[in-house]
Amino acid sequence: MADCLFCKIIKGEIPSTKIFESDKTLAFLNINPLTKGHCLVIPKDHHENVFDIPFEDLKTLIADAKQLADVLRGSLDADGVNLVNASGVAAEQSVFHFHIHIVPRYEGDDLQMNQWWRTKAKPANSEELKKLAEEIKNNQ
Amino acid sequence: MADCLFCKIIKGEIPSTKIFESDKTLAFLNINPLTKGHCLVIPKDHHENVFDIPFEDLKTLIADAKQLADVLRGSLDADGVNLVNASGVAAEQSVFHFHIHIVPRYEGDDLQMNQWWRTKAKPANSEELKKLAEEIKNNQ
Repeated sequence: MADCLFCKIIKGEIPSTKIFESDKTLAFLNINPLTKGHCLVIPKDHHENVFDIPFEDLKTLIADAKQLADVLRGSLDADGVNLVNASGVAAEQSVFHFHIHIVPRYEGDDLQMNQWWRTKAKPANSEELKKLAEEIKNNQ
Repeated sequence: MADCLFCKIIKGEIPSTKIFESDKTLAFLNINPLTKGHCLVIPKDHHENVFDIPFEDLKTLIADAKQLADVLRGSLDADGVNLVNASGVAAEQSVFHFHIHIVPRYEGDDLQMNQWWRTKAKPANSEELKKLAEEIKNNQ
């Protein structure tokens, strides 16, 4: 897509620091990383989000992300990874070309994702959850 | 695995509010949700994290997660979703059975994930990124 930042990166019109490339997938380092090795894994074909990407493309991409997670752990001595996707403006997606963040994690790093998470999560009433589940199941 | 909370949920030894089930996958509502419909998608076979789960199982799981993201959007009028995985203690994983969080997002919800994210991200020097990329590529 002409106006898409990541499509321009794929075409080489905008520079990036690539760490993996296949005929379907590109991965490059985030220029504003949460941790050392924080990268984005994207499909070369333009799909906006998890709703739009075809199943087969998503499967290929997640397999490449898993392989890359292994590589990052091996090469950077990471102790773990977070995989994160945002799909939709409401989900705080900022570039509208599907991407998976791989955030390598290191013992003692200071991300404290769970600390943020805990300030936002609220215990749910089990009756409410049951009602909600019915609502969801009726729509499958 | 005998001691695994999610294996117990799969076997029905611990109750959960299921919203999707196939022969390979289970999804149930989080009892401590970030938003309405926040659920966990897990493989029925026990695998600890993204490093351990076989490629085929991961592909099946992400396809089910995508399908469920569509269902959540349709049934709950969600405007988007975040998909999140934590693999490893350092990544703040708390249950050691692979799982993908689907967090439905709604316009005007108060999660502000990017606000947290921005407090933690730091711009990287392009020379450092190039060196890092070489390090990673040499280990593939």
